[in-house]
Amino acid sequence: MSTGNGYAPGRARQQQILAEATRAFGRAGFDGVTVQEIAEACGISRQGLLHHFASKEDLLMALLRQRDEADEELFRRTLADSGSPFRAILAVVRANAAAPAITAMFTQLAAEAIRPEHPAHDFFRGVYTRIHTDLRGTLMDMQREGTLVASIDPDQLASGLIALRDGLALQLFLRSEGQSAEEMTGTLEAMFSLLVPRS
Amino acid sequence: MSTGNGYAPGRARQQQILAEATRAFGRAGFDGVTVQEIAEACGISRQGLLHHFASKEDLLMALLRQRDEADEELFRRTLADSGSPFRAILAVVRANAAAPAITAMFTQLAAEAIRPEHPAHDFFRGVYTRIHTDLRGTLMDMQREGTLVASIDPDQLASGLIALRDGLALQLFLRSEGQSAEEMTGTLEAMFSLLVPRS
Repeated sequence: MSTGNGYAPGRARQQQILAEATRAFGRAGFDGVTVQEIAEACGISRQGLLHHFASKEDLLMALLRQRDEADEELFRRTLADSGSPFRAILAVVRANAAAPAITAMFTQLAAEAIRPEHPAHDFFRGVYTRIHTDLRGTLMDMQREGTLVASIDPDQLASGLIALRDGLALQLFLRSEGQSAEEMTGTLEAMFSLLVPRS
Repeated sequence: MSTGNGYAPGRARQQQILAEATRAFGRAGFDGVTVQEIAEACGISRQGLLHHFASKEDLLMALLRQRDEADEELFRRTLADSGSPFRAILAVVRANAAAPAITAMFTQLAAEAIRPEHPAHDFFRGVYTRIHTDLRGTLMDMQREGTLVASIDPDQLASGLIALRDGLALQLFLRSEGQSAEEMTGTLEAMFSLLVPRS
């Protein structure tokens, strides 16, 4: 992919802008970055960037949607292959942990977006509601099939699994003894195996 | 406590400033609030506020320390009374859940503070490291006393318990079917009882 010249083809340029925006939002949050700075990191002008994305909000939403679709696709594919929603969550966390800028960006943006007026507030509420509903449904299916003990409340377990994913991501950055991405996914796996006794 | 006049006694005024700053940071994050706005909410001038706290950073740190001390004290008291670190975490989460502005503030500030240059970065790293170390120690004591099964890795379990606390707090604000604070603490309690089989 070309960097630093003004003539990258449209799609390659869009991907470059999305990659630089991920890095920038991960470093400074949505409010801490200007379109100008992202354009400079791509080696293009502010106008050049605005040709691809009409505003910083548009850029943010494109980036979040792209990320969400990639995560969702990996989740569904792993779930279909393994039959296990726990393996599916782990696959997504592993993929994201390999790219700390993305984890940093999501961690910060999700927390910023708890404010109702944040441009990504509705997006994140939609994503969290969908993930929780899907996961609860999968857990209920497992209980019907007898692969998950019936005494667990699928609503609470779905909330707990999502919370573990998010909370461990935060600790990647806030534990000074330096938890590695590998230790983080190891902990997630260990918690899942404690939480999910097989029937 | 007097509000809206310039003559509240020093300590009452400080507490008022801390309460208004909590609300403001919870609504808009550290970067989204000015000293002027917090001063106005207290009914005093910017100079009046800066007489109590020399800068917005000083105000933030005073507020975080006050909060951390209150949480720590409640945690230790409940741990001493009940002998259970799970009850102690739940007591802290319940106290904070009763004040959503505080939970919103901590959720946002912790995520903002993953950036190394954030004024509260070192504070949060210190807090997370201390909480994890203390909790791991308590879990190891329980294993020695036979009140927690020996097969669980206390390092991973400590990480998992902290992650559940943080991740469920985020869902308070990002699930559109409206998880209540009570449901959140109920979920936390259910996850604890799954994670922590007694010996």
